[in-house]
Amino acid sequence: MRFCRFDANRLGIVEGNTIRDVTDALLSLPPLSWPAPHGDHFARNFDVVAARARELASSAPIVDAEKVRFLSPIANPSKIVAAPLNYAKHLTEVGRDPQIHADTHSFTHEGFATPIDKLGLFIKSTSSLVGPGEGVELVYPERRTDHEIELAVVIGREAKNISESEAFSHILGYSVSLDMTVRGSEDRSFRKSPDTYSVLGPVLVTIDEIEDPERLDFSITVNGITKQRGNTRDLIVGLRRLIAIAASCYTLYPGDIIMTGTPDGVAPVSPGDDVVATIAGLGKMRVQVRQGTPSSGIHGRTIPA
Amino acid sequence: MRFCRFDANRLGIVEGNTIRDVTDALLSLPPLSWPAPHGDHFARNFDVVAARARELASSAPIVDAEKVRFLSPIANPSKIVAAPLNYAKHLTEVGRDPQIHADTHSFTHEGFATPIDKLGLFIKSTSSLVGPGEGVELVYPERRTDHEIELAVVIGREAKNISESEAFSHILGYSVSLDMTVRGSEDRSFRKSPDTYSVLGPVLVTIDEIEDPERLDFSITVNGITKQRGNTRDLIVGLRRLIAIAASCYTLYPGDIIMTGTPDGVAPVSPGDDVVATIAGLGKMRVQVRQGTPSSGIHGRTIPA
Repeated sequence: MRFCRFDANRLGIVEGNTIRDVTDALLSLPPLSWPAPHGDHFARNFDVVAARARELASSAPIVDAEKVRFLSPIANPSKIVAAPLNYAKHLTEVGRDPQIHADTHSFTHEGFATPIDKLGLFIKSTSSLVGPGEGVELVYPERRTDHEIELAVVIGREAKNISESEAFSHILGYSVSLDMTVRGSEDRSFRKSPDTYSVLGPVLVTIDEIEDPERLDFSITVNGITKQRGNTRDLIVGLRRLIAIAASCYTLYPGDIIMTGTPDGVAPVSPGDDVVATIAGLGKMRVQVRQGTPSSGIHGRTIPA
Repeated sequence: MRFCRFDANRLGIVEGNTIRDVTDALLSLPPLSWPAPHGDHFARNFDVVAARARELASSAPIVDAEKVRFLSPIANPSKIVAAPLNYAKHLTEVGRDPQIHADTHSFTHEGFATPIDKLGLFIKSTSSLVGPGEGVELVYPERRTDHEIELAVVIGREAKNISESEAFSHILGYSVSLDMTVRGSEDRSFRKSPDTYSVLGPVLVTIDEIEDPERLDFSITVNGITKQRGNTRDLIVGLRRLIAIAASCYTLYPGDIIMTGTPDGVAPVSPGDDVVATIAGLGKMRVQVRQGTPSSGIHGRTIPA
């Protein structure tokens, strides 16, 4: 199935260019109270909601997918995990470009099998998460901010200390994602966590719909010009191992998002840019870039260009 | 006021060694549903709950504080933000000790006013958060894992692009915290995010109770031996600026936690250790360290010692 969340928190099943509005399926969610358990309530109760959505689908109102504002299909992940330097050509481009490594960030991995064996995964703030229809708002207009297209894995079932062979049974589905990134000397978890810097959507595609997630073509265009192009077969650390590494460190909860890494071609965006990210089988994400309210400059302006 | 959460999600007002059980005040929380707004539902509705708790306090059951299991007073923060290298002597000790900087992490800041101007703040996973009574479980037993005592600030009111002079009006209160840290080459947001590696409590002390949060003595002992000792007057970047830097990057929501940095004396802990962290005016946090279930070793064992 292909789920989306849109407009004022409507739930939809996507079929081509139309959406069946199955919002009433959310009434089957059990009550939520403080303290909420870790994870996204929708993802945790996915089977119940999906069953009800299937019942409602045939008589559901139909909406034109071109006319809605897509939100993130996952609203409340307990964490967003992301993979650094996970495509070989991107690793090379980072090492070559001081604007990217900022003379601070490690881009070698002698003594380690892969960059991720050295650097681990990193965390992005959950408050950075938006859907494609919400757009990206540049927080430090005077600094370089890049697009990074990534295949996102959404976790469906709690995972701690699992083997690589168990990893796929913990996946709920996949989505297109952008890991927007300010370049500079700060930790990844700072530069990649401003509001709107994690974009997920437009659709959560359940695992059964994708035959081989490690053989998907993808690309991103900015104002119609192709900037990044890749295939998930070129991931240095594949999905099973990424999930197992994450689950060796912390518990993964339903709705947790793993962004799997970006290929070469990362490049700055500007206000007004029209970004289109496409992954085969997962659809097309269209995102507008806008200027943020000028920041108080507390941090941005003390950083040398 | 001094709030705690304990046992099976009881809410208490702490007075010396006794707790008034005001759990029924939680009935004044408004309903919660998916998608939940960013932030902790209790912190977002603190005024309502606190007013009701005050009414209930005089006739509330009294519990012995020595006999309860303290949970984190904040259950569902949208993020845990933390400050790297924010005490001068800790900065020196990191630079001197390859076990800490791992030949990977920057410990100089030429061209920047402070280490934080260079490195920014970092994010810890919210799934790492526990209370003192839950203990710390070592996830990579073969690797060095250190205690870091820190003054934690809990946000009470949404903050984005605020000035330093506005910062204090966004604070709900303070708490003792531990930023448990695996040493090694991975990003901070990985090494500091395993389950149980963020400890908060036992009490959330509201801002009105602390005359000057930048003049608090604190210390940590392991099995009765003092390991770290400091005073918050020695913070390189003070609270106002930490909050303003955070809010220049992302929106801070009620319940968000800012760990303000640790002084020198960081040292490894072992299973069975009895850790006691004390901050003047905020109380004493007692935490037991235990061995984790042996991890699948996916990541831990591929990292050279």
